[in-house]
Amino acid sequence: MNTLRIRIATILCILAFTASAALAGGPQKTLPGDLSLTQAQAVLAAAQAKALAIKVPMNIAVVDAGGNLKAFARMDDAFIGSIDIATRKATTARFFNMSTRALGAAAQPGQPLFGIEATNGGLVIFAGGVLLVDKHNVIVGAVGVSGGSVDEDESVALAGAAAIAK
Amino acid sequence: MNTLRIRIATILCILAFTASAALAGGPQKTLPGDLSLTQAQAVLAAAQAKALAIKVPMNIAVVDAGGNLKAFARMDDAFIGSIDIATRKATTARFFNMSTRALGAAAQPGQPLFGIEATNGGLVIFAGGVLLVDKHNVIVGAVGVSGGSVDEDESVALAGAAAIAK
Amino acid sequence: MNTLRIRIATILCILAFTASAALAGGPQKTLPGDLSLTQAQAVLAAAQAKALAIKVPMNIAVVDAGGNLKAFARMDDAFIGSIDIATRKATTARFFNMSTRALGAAAQPGQPLFGIEATNGGLVIFAGGVLLVDKHNVIVGAVGVSGGSVDEDESVALAGAAAIAK
Amino acid sequence: MNTLRIRIATILCILAFTASAALAGGPQKTLPGDLSLTQAQAVLAAAQAKALAIKVPMNIAVVDAGGNLKAFARMDDAFIGSIDIATRKATTARFFNMSTRALGAAAQPGQPLFGIEATNGGLVIFAGGVLLVDKHNVIVGAVGVSGGSVDEDESVALAGAAAIAK
Repeated sequence: MNTLRIRIATILCILAFTASAALAGGPQKTLPGDLSLTQAQAVLAAAQAKALAIKVPMNIAVVDAGGNLKAFARMDDAFIGSIDIATRKATTARFFNMSTRALGAAAQPGQPLFGIEATNGGLVIFAGGVLLVDKHNVIVGAVGVSGGSVDEDESVALAGAAAIAK
Repeated sequence: MNTLRIRIATILCILAFTASAALAGGPQKTLPGDLSLTQAQAVLAAAQAKALAIKVPMNIAVVDAGGNLKAFARMDDAFIGSIDIATRKATTARFFNMSTRALGAAAQPGQPLFGIEATNGGLVIFAGGVLLVDKHNVIVGAVGVSGGSVDEDESVALAGAAAIAK
Repeated sequence: MNTLRIRIATILCILAFTASAALAGGPQKTLPGDLSLTQAQAVLAAAQAKALAIKVPMNIAVVDAGGNLKAFARMDDAFIGSIDIATRKATTARFFNMSTRALGAAAQPGQPLFGIEATNGGLVIFAGGVLLVDKHNVIVGAVGVSGGSVDEDESVALAGAAAIAK
Repeated sequence: MNTLRIRIATILCILAFTASAALAGGPQKTLPGDLSLTQAQAVLAAAQAKALAIKVPMNIAVVDAGGNLKAFARMDDAFIGSIDIATRKATTARFFNMSTRALGAAAQPGQPLFGIEATNGGLVIFAGGVLLVDKHNVIVGAVGVSGGSVDEDESVALAGAAAIAK
């Protein structure tokens, strides 16, 4: 039943875009519903506001549904080494459709995914990467934050994610 | 006017998926319209049939709209070194929304993009990577083929791409 | 007894391929008995059927005796981050001729191989990679699966491996 | 004369920051005069406005005086493969304190730096990366743009650089 509803949604969607793409002439370059730059910059702005509120300079990275970088900001005095960590937190969250905190819990010694951080060219398995779920309940990307304690990082990421959730 | 039509299409699409996602309970994991495994395997099968017809064993890689690997096949006796080339041809095509032949023409000595192959961890700038455009005229991924001459590679890639174009 | 049968089978196989290579004119490109694409796709299909049965979307990678990718499929909604993990599970299993579960047991803190996952550009040390052993009891490759719990992953890999074991 | 003014400005700047660091208690984390996020985002905004004006979706990357990423934006429909190119254009320009166009001229076949693009993990040797020089005539970073023709890319980069030049 659920599957049927998704199929109907897909058909409606495809019909809508058929009309649009046919008229546009060239092929459509971006899948419908993917994260826009406007959304990504709203995530950055909300995260940055939270970081200022808690007085911790942060690196903030936003990736789209395909896991590709969409927007980034390094606040003044934020760690240089966190450019990579913030970005990997975002991709890690999208790669496994869960927060980096949740992934990290399963990657501790003795846990099922111990050692997973050595895959994908290096994952981040501590808190600060969270999914971006839009108001239609679709995963459209992820945000990764690094610069403070992992709890601070995650609070800033969650503030960013909230910007497009409603 | 064109923009307006795309907006209307987007709104219709979002409405359709709102209904679907809301009922599904969890967030939707894949953007509507992205390449399905069924489509990717149809591309592989069509490409493989063409490779058999011209009697050249090929590596065939298919990536989705986000540029992430969806399906792959190395035919018997096909080059081991073409695993990487076929895959990079597919990602290269999607990364720049053009065939690797077209990109290569602009990357010759003296041409504007000379040296581009050193970016993105290594691009492929000769023929054999082509876009996958679905019947709604949306770019949903790319296929890369390697194993024969570049003309043979491209003919196999085009045969693959044709499988989802209508 | 078993060993004798394998030797006879190998000799017959080599004779057959010698004839074939002599007729073809050029040198034989592939070792006699190495995993064929037909076998690899049978592994994929069996694994995919199991994944559908347990309702967990998976990434499935098959490598040949040389540890090189032969076939791959990412099912719809399966993790993007598992493309790399499934592939590394397959290569890891073949690299050490044991399941990734067995390797992982020896790689826990305090165990002899602690830290091995940092070698070879990144190994996977949890369950889901299993060897492909053909009906002549020869290791012809490996299959790696990623997308669910490690037990689910391994059950799907074993279902795949069973496809060529008899 | 110009040099004298820069020295005076630098001394004043250092005095100001010395005071600030002394008051803050800990060591000063950022060099006086290094690119601020406010400046980097002004560069992004100016570049984005130019890209919209010429109707070419762009990737825009800004690095600071240390060559480390400070801010990034990928406009809707811009090439995924240009994330890396825009970023490398910015770092390449700062690495050699010249535009990527100038470096590229010296890297053509037969020219002194032929092959330089293979260093530093991959440089970009075509136009679109330009230095950021502030109003005190100090190089404070670079901006890299990728998404259109190299002339379009460079025009957008120059528009971005102009935002902090006066």
